Amino acid sequence: MTMKLFYAPGACSFVPHVLLEMSGTNFEPTPVKLHKGEQYTEDYKLINPRSQVPVLSHDANVITQIVAITLYLDMVFPGQHFLPSTHLERARALSTFAWMNNTVHPTFTHVFMPAKFTDQPEAQAAIRTHAIGQYKTLLSELQALVVANNESGRTWLAGEHFGPLDAYALTLTRWGTIAGIGPQVHPQLWAFVQKVAAQPAVARVMERERLQLDMSASAIA
Amino acid sequence: MTMKLFYAPGACSFVPHVLLEMSGTNFEPTPVKLHKGEQYTEDYKLINPRSQVPVLSHDANVITQIVAITLYLDMVFPGQHFLPSTHLERARALSTFAWMNNTVHPTFTHVFMPAKFTDQPEAQAAIRTHAIGQYKTLLSELQALVVANNESGRTWLAGEHFGPLDAYALTLTRWGTIAGIGPQVHPQLWAFVQKVAAQPAVARVMERERLQLDMSASAIA
Repeated sequence: MTMKLFYAPGACSFVPHVLLEMSGTNFEPTPVKLHKGEQYTEDYKLINPRSQVPVLSHDANVITQIVAITLYLDMVFPGQHFLPSTHLERARALSTFAWMNNTVHPTFTHVFMPAKFTDQPEAQAAIRTHAIGQYKTLLSELQALVVANNESGRTWLAGEHFGPLDAYALTLTRWGTIAGIGPQVHPQLWAFVQKVAAQPAVARVMERERLQLDMSASAIA
Repeated sequence: MTMKLFYAPGACSFVPHVLLEMSGTNFEPTPVKLHKGEQYTEDYKLINPRSQVPVLSHDANVITQIVAITLYLDMVFPGQHFLPSTHLERARALSTFAWMNNTVHPTFTHVFMPAKFTDQPEAQAAIRTHAIGQYKTLLSELQALVVANNESGRTWLAGEHFGPLDAYALTLTRWGTIAGIGPQVHPQLWAFVQKVAAQPAVARVMERERLQLDMSASAIA
């Protein structure tokens, strides 16, 4: 079994990167330098024509999209309990995962890359300003999830086992600091994310990706 | 077992609506009139604080997000083969599903509701124009998937069984006509979507939702 993960430091590829690290499997972490445009090379487009990370390649089969990669890793490593196994708990975890992936994540894209949505500079500035406000609201919603979860005696977002939702929460909160939404804005979310960062597999991946949790000092807005 | 689906005609709730109709289970289709703001009533917010459709309620448990609802229905009705069961085929189907859900779908939101991204009218117009171009490209990509699928002898997008990807393809293509991207732009995609519409469960849901496939005549752009 040969697994290779194409990732970019700090991108959402962090989620499968952490899961692979947790699994103890012998995988090949392969960085893709987005700032150097490596995702647009012909070689990379042969792997993923959409020029995105992450890509999981497993015995020459290619899987894209973190939701799909996570569900795949959950099937390959059932003993890791990446996702709950009971129908309802599993569906609820996936619902939060989908919301992070189709709502929180794309909102940050509007902050980070407003040029993806218009080529007019003034409209880009308006999009970014609006998106920062929305992103703050979404992180408040994420914090409310974390608080409700703590109150119901659950250790991690999907229940007793650490998993993809927790890793994604770290990524999304870290992106918040890039948008100028610092640790003091959502103290309970921040406390949770520090607990995530202290997990051994997470710490190893943060070191490999050379990630700082708080990017407020170099915020883009 | 009591299942209730909160849906809006023409929205992405069409996907679980079709799956429930296929399952043969006795469920309660419950329309939510988005144009009348019913999603913002206190009653509906108790069901889904995010004021979105769809919501599946099952014995008083609530599940949101079409990816999560689909995976839940796949667990509850395994005999329907809504998603492939082998690891790799399943992951690939979910990858396409996630792409439809986090890329194609949100791009249409920029066409349909540019006010979600800025309150400046000129920026809204710029966003819509840009998004229509992107949406056309994404439907071309969807058509390429359909063509590649046909060429490899597969009947439906996830293989031999009709399922959520096919229903979502219909919804996304229909939205294209609302954006002024008519049937003639992607003839092979259009042919596929007509085959989808002819499935008995799909036809019943289209009748219940009173959906026309081609909305070009009243396109917003």
